[in-house]
Amino acid sequence: MKYINFEDSTDVASDTFFMRQALQEAQEALKLDEVPIGAVIVSNGKIIGKGHNLAERLKDVTAHAEMQAFTAAANYIGGKYLTDCTLYVTIEPCVMCAGAAYWTHISRIVYGAKDEKRGYSNFHDKLLHPKTTVTAGVLEEECGELVKSFFRNKRK
Amino acid sequence: MKYINFEDSTDVASDTFFMRQALQEAQEALKLDEVPIGAVIVSNGKIIGKGHNLAERLKDVTAHAEMQAFTAAANYIGGKYLTDCTLYVTIEPCVMCAGAAYWTHISRIVYGAKDEKRGYSNFHDKLLHPKTTVTAGVLEEECGELVKSFFRNKRK
Repeated sequence: MKYINFEDSTDVASDTFFMRQALQEAQEALKLDEVPIGAVIVSNGKIIGKGHNLAERLKDVTAHAEMQAFTAAANYIGGKYLTDCTLYVTIEPCVMCAGAAYWTHISRIVYGAKDEKRGYSNFHDKLLHPKTTVTAGVLEEECGELVKSFFRNKRK
Repeated sequence: MKYINFEDSTDVASDTFFMRQALQEAQEALKLDEVPIGAVIVSNGKIIGKGHNLAERLKDVTAHAEMQAFTAAANYIGGKYLTDCTLYVTIEPCVMCAGAAYWTHISRIVYGAKDEKRGYSNFHDKLLHPKTTVTAGVLEEECGELVKSFFRNKRK
């Protein structure tokens, strides 16, 4: 692994690096036959929370990758606010996850592929906290293809 | 307690009855110095899940009353869909909880008082599932006053 300067959290190389960690989480979901979506939360260049979709395994719609990552990161920090943190998630957060992100006051969200159906940006531009900045399209094709091929295989 | 025919789930008396159960949950939150919001989920006249806000206690923004009630009800049912269920919640669900409700395909939501800030209806009329019907204003004053007096006391 090449040395990456994680100090600058908006650095393209570090965004790609952390999205790869989120993709690893998505692979964990895939192993369990879950819709392969993964997430990590990063603070000061360090992963402090991660999660992968477990909605089927847990029979619980609230078990999205992001929700678990939020809970894990808040647990790590010992507080519910994730200011100065970045969420990396392979697919655009849905309304529920965007609504949770709002409550965390998270500084930044980086996502891979857009969700044309339930992606938060299809609904209202104020679902997220006004302080949250968003970067879309990091490893977009890889993130999107993982989910698309999952559903293609399901239809076979 | 007067006999109530729970068969008709849209019956005003049963709505009031179950909202009182949600208010009891809100009282549990209040005892813990949490924003007093409570929820129950009812299927065939029976409470199959309940929850009260624990966001501070758990230091977790995802620990809203509704989210816990969804998880509890899904656990009871053994499946993630809450079709043929009604959510009773003292305050209008926020964006996160509405987004979660969408995924559950819940049949009906009954809430007490409106949330003028983060209530889902302030954002987009399609945050909920198209099959979900909504009744607002059941024990509205009591539900709203519980939260208002909580914040009044906090400001003292």
